[in-house]
Amino acid sequence: MNIDSLLDSGAAALAHRLQQRDISAETLTRACLERIAQREPKLHAWAVLGHDQAIARAKELDRGPTQGLLHGLPLGVKDIYDTYDLPTAYGSPIYKGHQPANDAAAVAVCREAGAVVIGKTITTEFATFEPGPTRNPHNPAFTPGGSSSGSAAAVGAGMVPLALGTQTAGSLIRPAAYCGIVGYKPSFGMLARAGVKSLCESLDTVGGFGRSVDDVALLVSALSGNRALLNPDSTRAPRVALCRTPMWDHAEPEVHEAMAQAERVLKGAGVKIREIELPSSFGVLTDIHAEIMAFEAARALADERIRHEEQLGPVLQKMLAQGQELPYERYQALMTLAAEARAQLASQFKNVEIILAPSAPGVAPLADSGTGDAVFCRLWTLLGAPCIHLPFHQGPHGLPVGLQVIGPVGADLPTLRAAAWVHERLRG
Amino acid sequence: MNIDSLLDSGAAALAHRLQQRDISAETLTRACLERIAQREPKLHAWAVLGHDQAIARAKELDRGPTQGLLHGLPLGVKDIYDTYDLPTAYGSPIYKGHQPANDAAAVAVCREAGAVVIGKTITTEFATFEPGPTRNPHNPAFTPGGSSSGSAAAVGAGMVPLALGTQTAGSLIRPAAYCGIVGYKPSFGMLARAGVKSLCESLDTVGGFGRSVDDVALLVSALSGNRALLNPDSTRAPRVALCRTPMWDHAEPEVHEAMAQAERVLKGAGVKIREIELPSSFGVLTDIHAEIMAFEAARALADERIRHEEQLGPVLQKMLAQGQELPYERYQALMTLAAEARAQLASQFKNVEIILAPSAPGVAPLADSGTGDAVFCRLWTLLGAPCIHLPFHQGPHGLPVGLQVIGPVGADLPTLRAAAWVHERLRG
Repeated sequence: MNIDSLLDSGAAALAHRLQQRDISAETLTRACLERIAQREPKLHAWAVLGHDQAIARAKELDRGPTQGLLHGLPLGVKDIYDTYDLPTAYGSPIYKGHQPANDAAAVAVCREAGAVVIGKTITTEFATFEPGPTRNPHNPAFTPGGSSSGSAAAVGAGMVPLALGTQTAGSLIRPAAYCGIVGYKPSFGMLARAGVKSLCESLDTVGGFGRSVDDVALLVSALSGNRALLNPDSTRAPRVALCRTPMWDHAEPEVHEAMAQAERVLKGAGVKIREIELPSSFGVLTDIHAEIMAFEAARALADERIRHEEQLGPVLQKMLAQGQELPYERYQALMTLAAEARAQLASQFKNVEIILAPSAPGVAPLADSGTGDAVFCRLWTLLGAPCIHLPFHQGPHGLPVGLQVIGPVGADLPTLRAAAWVHERLRG
Repeated sequence: MNIDSLLDSGAAALAHRLQQRDISAETLTRACLERIAQREPKLHAWAVLGHDQAIARAKELDRGPTQGLLHGLPLGVKDIYDTYDLPTAYGSPIYKGHQPANDAAAVAVCREAGAVVIGKTITTEFATFEPGPTRNPHNPAFTPGGSSSGSAAAVGAGMVPLALGTQTAGSLIRPAAYCGIVGYKPSFGMLARAGVKSLCESLDTVGGFGRSVDDVALLVSALSGNRALLNPDSTRAPRVALCRTPMWDHAEPEVHEAMAQAERVLKGAGVKIREIELPSSFGVLTDIHAEIMAFEAARALADERIRHEEQLGPVLQKMLAQGQELPYERYQALMTLAAEARAQLASQFKNVEIILAPSAPGVAPLADSGTGDAVFCRLWTLLGAPCIHLPFHQGPHGLPVGLQVIGPVGADLPTLRAAAWVHERLRG
């Protein structure tokens, strides 16, 4: 097997071969580092590379017994997760060269499971809006999306089989869509956030990227300790709802096509598809999300706002000022509305296992226009539902398009199973 | 006014005098530092003192306009909150001398409101069980309680008018009870935890200590930005439920007495008191809390567990090992039970504004037996309800006893009002 097909074979397949000692962790790590050397000059996916540490760690793993589910798998870590052996700048000049004392919980657990941390990937400023230098692996004129820009670009370019990201608005699903990979935002509260720079306590969610549903299920199985998530196979067609969401007028033609293609293909595969319309009260949830995000960010980033305001980007400054101005009572009322909507969401799943909905308005926009719009993600993040982006279509400029699968809060296992079944049909 | 009555007059009264420029921040800060110099040798409330910084800051505040609600008020900060200018060791030898890059959100917001950070107060190991050296201000043979040991002892000894703590099991209410001060655990999710060492994401709660309900209301008003919480007066007697809880057989005679005294005094003041029994399903919540705590702590402290196990205390090691062994499905089932109980709690408040219940089994135990038992707090922490400890009684050895007021989740304002009304009657 040549090196390129090795790198493109995906984390789940690689994990199996590593555990069989069919390939060594060192071989795979060196292959990743080589791919990075080739593609990094144009993509800028990495904030820091731990070249020598990674090779030393891979050699150590090759000498020892199988450590866990991620044994020998190279991993990219969004630079919003603390790492004890690599500097962590949270995408902000305030923290240039900052060296945390410890690993974020998710990083520690991945290492314990045998992952080889290759380096830290570029994040937007504190996982908000100000873009880093990262470019889209399909065409460097375009954005990879944000805020998990580097992690998505790195997996999209085959630099690593897996990478950690986070989502507060649309920071996993949108970059997965733009980079043509699978992104998985688990149910809110499923994975520990200790050591991840806090932005919004009621929204921040740990998740990751891979090339298939099996890949991200492997990662989140290792992170959660829930082995049941591994290899989410299903022989039964799930019941699927297509949902255009109240944001449908933001959808570009390529997203219309992706929805039509999904409907056609799944119907052809015997899936019972229904259209659903969300309760009309859900129409305001996207705006509510933005207000809650501003309020909580103004508090979580209080020290940065107070002591380093001149080093914050203008868009973040504006959001924090808006959050500061929001009265506490308004925030409390919005949180009550969000809780009511969460209770209502459950009833949307009475007759279907999953909802299929847009992940982003269209293909990746040009890099100099920002990291794209989270308009199709805020709603589901606010609701805390598990979301999995599935790439399967091509839009303008040969850029990838796909849809996200959404499941009931806490039902990650059936959601992954349904997503794997659907993805197999959609990508043909 | 002599210095002792100044220090004992409480944060709310001091805040008023500071804003009137009737006393200076420097005078008050020096008085606190003097009291600390007198009492610290026996009490060991402080991990680090920022003597010179505090005086410099006080002088700066005296020269400028009123900064905010806490203008010129000396503040103790539990050593589980990051501070950019003082080392933060989280009560663990692993982090001896560790200097964070930034302030925890709560610390930054208090400073912005004009607080003078006097230093970091002793915490048990990662806010769990292994006691620090702190002793009870009423009698150094006894424990001040934990985990917010130093903050409670410092306020109890009049070293500072206010101090920040956290509660994951009973770490605010129990030390408040043992030290004879007011402790306030706000509703879960009300205050930002960014920069507080994470122990259990679904339980950790930011709160604090003062000498009266007005004091803690002032602190939490500044922290939340919710001005409505200030001076929680009420002219109307609240409807009160006495609740012995399913843990009643843990209560010592002095707690029986406190409950009887409260009932007598409040009835005499015209309060309609009813006894309530919690739903029988609540009986298991104390054990469920302990299991959830172990599961989440094993994840949040993953890096410490993996890289520094030999530096963890034996009780913490055991809890983390138990948490590691708990299957993910079990955790998920427990979280579902907790969510159901939260929904049921609301109906307990149909005919009453507050519940009055024990805060601890009795007076503070001897210091060499640990930091006491959180058995009367775990239930309410799991339910996310606001809790306020009110001291008003004396038990054996002249040690303080009191009860906690519990309100509906999110109803912090009416709970504070009712607590202030009740406390005024109880302390006579």
